[in-house]
Amino acid sequence: MEQSSSDGIPGGSDGGVSPSSPCVDASFVREAAVALKGHIVETPCLYSRTLSKICGCEVWVKFENLQFTASFKERGALNKLRTLTPSQREKGVIAMSAGNHAQGVAYHAGRLGIGATIVMPEGTPFIKIEHTRNFGANVVLKGRTLSEAQAEAERLAALNGSVFIPPYDDPLVIAGQGTIALEMLASAPDLDTLLVPVGGGGLVSGIALAAKAVKPCLQVLGVQVAAYPTMHQALHGLPAEVGTDTIAEGIAVKNVGRLTFEIVRRLVDDVLVVDDQDVERAVALFLSVEKTVSEGAGAVGLAALLRDPGRFRDRKVGLVLSGGNIDPRLLAQVVMRQLVREGRVIAIKVGIADQPGALGRIATLIGEAGGNIIEAMHQRLFTAANAKAAELQLTIECRSAVHAGQVIAALRGAGFDVRMVVDVPLGTIADMPDGAA
Amino acid sequence: MEQSSSDGIPGGSDGGVSPSSPCVDASFVREAAVALKGHIVETPCLYSRTLSKICGCEVWVKFENLQFTASFKERGALNKLRTLTPSQREKGVIAMSAGNHAQGVAYHAGRLGIGATIVMPEGTPFIKIEHTRNFGANVVLKGRTLSEAQAEAERLAALNGSVFIPPYDDPLVIAGQGTIALEMLASAPDLDTLLVPVGGGGLVSGIALAAKAVKPCLQVLGVQVAAYPTMHQALHGLPAEVGTDTIAEGIAVKNVGRLTFEIVRRLVDDVLVVDDQDVERAVALFLSVEKTVSEGAGAVGLAALLRDPGRFRDRKVGLVLSGGNIDPRLLAQVVMRQLVREGRVIAIKVGIADQPGALGRIATLIGEAGGNIIEAMHQRLFTAANAKAAELQLTIECRSAVHAGQVIAALRGAGFDVRMVVDVPLGTIADMPDGAA
Repeated sequence: MEQSSSDGIPGGSDGGVSPSSPCVDASFVREAAVALKGHIVETPCLYSRTLSKICGCEVWVKFENLQFTASFKERGALNKLRTLTPSQREKGVIAMSAGNHAQGVAYHAGRLGIGATIVMPEGTPFIKIEHTRNFGANVVLKGRTLSEAQAEAERLAALNGSVFIPPYDDPLVIAGQGTIALEMLASAPDLDTLLVPVGGGGLVSGIALAAKAVKPCLQVLGVQVAAYPTMHQALHGLPAEVGTDTIAEGIAVKNVGRLTFEIVRRLVDDVLVVDDQDVERAVALFLSVEKTVSEGAGAVGLAALLRDPGRFRDRKVGLVLSGGNIDPRLLAQVVMRQLVREGRVIAIKVGIADQPGALGRIATLIGEAGGNIIEAMHQRLFTAANAKAAELQLTIECRSAVHAGQVIAALRGAGFDVRMVVDVPLGTIADMPDGAA
Repeated sequence: MEQSSSDGIPGGSDGGVSPSSPCVDASFVREAAVALKGHIVETPCLYSRTLSKICGCEVWVKFENLQFTASFKERGALNKLRTLTPSQREKGVIAMSAGNHAQGVAYHAGRLGIGATIVMPEGTPFIKIEHTRNFGANVVLKGRTLSEAQAEAERLAALNGSVFIPPYDDPLVIAGQGTIALEMLASAPDLDTLLVPVGGGGLVSGIALAAKAVKPCLQVLGVQVAAYPTMHQALHGLPAEVGTDTIAEGIAVKNVGRLTFEIVRRLVDDVLVVDDQDVERAVALFLSVEKTVSEGAGAVGLAALLRDPGRFRDRKVGLVLSGGNIDPRLLAQVVMRQLVREGRVIAIKVGIADQPGALGRIATLIGEAGGNIIEAMHQRLFTAANAKAAELQLTIECRSAVHAGQVIAALRGAGFDVRMVVDVPLGTIADMPDGAA
């Protein structure tokens, strides 16, 4: 299926390959699997009954967030590092990353006694710098953007004669990531579809190489996020256009790899695109159902299932939960926004006459209906009504969307004018068991 | 070590045993392990390098939050259910719980084709009712408190002649929970200490029975939360006193079991007490380090390590992460409160002259220092200063405690009067790499 290639691992390759002859095939992945064994966590790949029920297909999850540095990036990094010559090891390695690749390189270089310099953009969160330094790496903070940091990394590599460890566009890095597919198919041989996050394309390339060699009929689908659909665009001949911010910053990559693009074009069946809302729902679902923390990029596969369940009906789908490094505040926000979506936290505006006791009456009614006020704002100036009127904005925690409807009905029943600040469907009381919400 | 007892499993025991003859021993646990095999997830028990480093001892975690219903309660429930006679199965079972026991009973009764009625207090969150009903159980909502719901469950059991499945004070339930210890010691035979959450005492009783039989020198320590230290009180001859709310509501039990108390007194080395702050830190740590969701009760073992690391120095400690069913909003709050504790989210008050441009200047200074304003409140009436003054309260996200110090220094350097709303130590700039925060 894929082009035959060299029969060994080229020691100390710098990853510079011409797009017309991608010198990496499934044998690279098999060799990587042997070499990595025991040095990488063989993460579980588990069937999820609940996600299967929710998505209408058979769902397996590969928990790469359980690697020591909480992402799959270790595999490619280690597979590259292990092939360095003694003199290359002596000179140390360089990488540029503000994220998972930095930790993957730093950890395994430290373990192997190889000096590592990681260039990170200025302003990288301290926690990430600290993690990377704790593995013994030398962290250089330089540049306001990733491109500026990249330039510095290249300058340092040239200056010191050190090997640069690329984040994705390298045969050995790709082969390392591909070992995930071998483990998944060993755990769940019946899988017929894999959903794989795509940024630069290293992960999906390695997985496609390995999986298609083991099981040619298996579908390998990449998933990108709408703000950075660069591989999708390249594949479909569209101009490269990227947005700004996304919850899936781990795959927010402007430039797809040359080598990875060749492999994706040849072996990946399609690259789907999900939006940030889908990803948020998926992160929240991993947390509530699987009790596991996914970063945005790690959840795009589940997001693709949620977005278009019809496409995957009754298929046996393997999701690569590629990493768990999500900013805690972002995670907290995703959780709260999901509660808003479910109608379990609502925001309402209540118009009131500016008289003593009004707030007390409203708060009492809400409390009696079982609602829990978690934020209140009382204001007078900017109401549409007359000068004597005021407006109360309340954020209320409810037991369900139906219960939220009951809380609002209680206020309206007492004559208050209530508006939802953000509209969510509140369900119907007929859905509910008596006395419950 | 423990008293010898009957040599078989009493079919359909109702759990009524006199305190002087606790008819359960390690053989019950071994039998339970055989019977449960294949019907319960044999959850992973994994060494955590990072928690070990943080706590200064060797830490293993037993992930009982990965059971299908996300808690250990299934083990005891199934071990009780499997011993029912055909006529008892015919009549169905009854349980009372607003939490994990409800789901454990409902799920396994459903799987075995046994009718289950679960009595829950009115006002139980809809999501818990829904989960329980989805397993095919009949949910009865009755009573404003757990005691009222309990009375209804007993009434229904008597009325229908159905077997009541107790949450903890029952030999078969205890034996089921004890299977956790056998799995832990099989995975990590070197363990010398187990830290086990204690509510009614079923889990710790079963674990102590099993573990002490396998390895008599092993220390079994229970852990309770300060608001509900009832087993600790009973053990130390203190009057029973409980508080109100706790993040560890899964072990907020007013009455310890009679049977469990006997076993704890005989076999458990001590019952420690942690407070809610310790538990919050532990839940946040499980999330950030292990990428796993623990409910409050599930995290008390880790909380005990964090509270008194000296006590466990260099020991080999097994933590029972007993469940992962935590309310999403509570989880989000725990995460945010941890950021506050770490100085990564700060609240400050800035006194300003009530003139155009002041807010703009302050916000610009904060932005230039890399701080991210996430909440702002501008008020005039309640400041201590003169009538022309106003006060700005800001919540700011920073990259670290040191960075927070830099943000505040930038404001003070420009002549603003800044006070912390909640004091947290902001570290020293000497700790930081140049250019980073």
